[in-house]
Amino acid sequence: MSHERLLAICAERMATADVAYLTNVDANGYPKTRAMLNLRNRDQYPGQIELYADHTQDLMTYITTNTGSQKRGELEANGRISLYFCHPGDFFGVNLTGDAEIVDDLDIKKTLWVENWAQYFPTGKVDDPDFTLLRLYPREVRGWNRGEKFAFELPS
Amino acid sequence: MSHERLLAICAERMATADVAYLTNVDANGYPKTRAMLNLRNRDQYPGQIELYADHTQDLMTYITTNTGSQKRGELEANGRISLYFCHPGDFFGVNLTGDAEIVDDLDIKKTLWVENWAQYFPTGKVDDPDFTLLRLYPREVRGWNRGEKFAFELPS
Repeated sequence: MSHERLLAICAERMATADVAYLTNVDANGYPKTRAMLNLRNRDQYPGQIELYADHTQDLMTYITTNTGSQKRGELEANGRISLYFCHPGDFFGVNLTGDAEIVDDLDIKKTLWVENWAQYFPTGKVDDPDFTLLRLYPREVRGWNRGEKFAFELPS
Repeated sequence: MSHERLLAICAERMATADVAYLTNVDANGYPKTRAMLNLRNRDQYPGQIELYADHTQDLMTYITTNTGSQKRGELEANGRISLYFCHPGDFFGVNLTGDAEIVDDLDIKKTLWVENWAQYFPTGKVDDPDFTLLRLYPREVRGWNRGEKFAFELPS
């Protein structure tokens, strides 16, 4: 199967996965994983579908977190992350690796903002200093699609 | 909540999670995650319940993989891994970190072996050289339990 077709399948599967698994590497070199909001889920975030429309081939993905969280500090020290999306019942899983960027652009933050996120941040507003936005342009794509393994790099 | 109580909750949650998410760190320092068989799942592996009975407080866990897989090579170079178990709908997730050991003991392998694993290995037998068994005694336990964060170390 072509990489183009596989990327389109990944984008489609990412759009229906319940959560995204974010892993970073701590100061001692150990990985740390946690389930995060999957902003590419089109049922949960219909207002964000537009944002990813041109990104079915590079799989660019946004992730939100709290500025105060330990992981932001760790990400500043070491931006190497993976994002994993899966549908275990369908034997589909994709792991995206690359370097997380911290996005300060308030316009992008406003486009992403969902009203009920207010509960996660002290001021309850999109410009809350505790609202951190991460972006990943993956460099490596690796996984399984219906029992078939795939692994390839994406251009930077 | 005491660590003892939290560990018991983690053991219980691990026993009902569908899959385990294994992450290692590749030669370039990037994390790689994939869903694995959760050998602590008591419905899927009733024959293995006994094995974990004395491990509700240290959360020792076995993971199977293929000797030939790229991850075995990476694990030999860098044994730092995490195992993540979660129930997203219940706001529960636990990340266990530590160093993976490769277990060569054929008696342990026989105790774990499940008939339908034959399909994963060339000879279809428990002593297949492609059948690799990993064991993790976690050193750090970190996660969320019904909206409450926890993080602590386990004695080595």
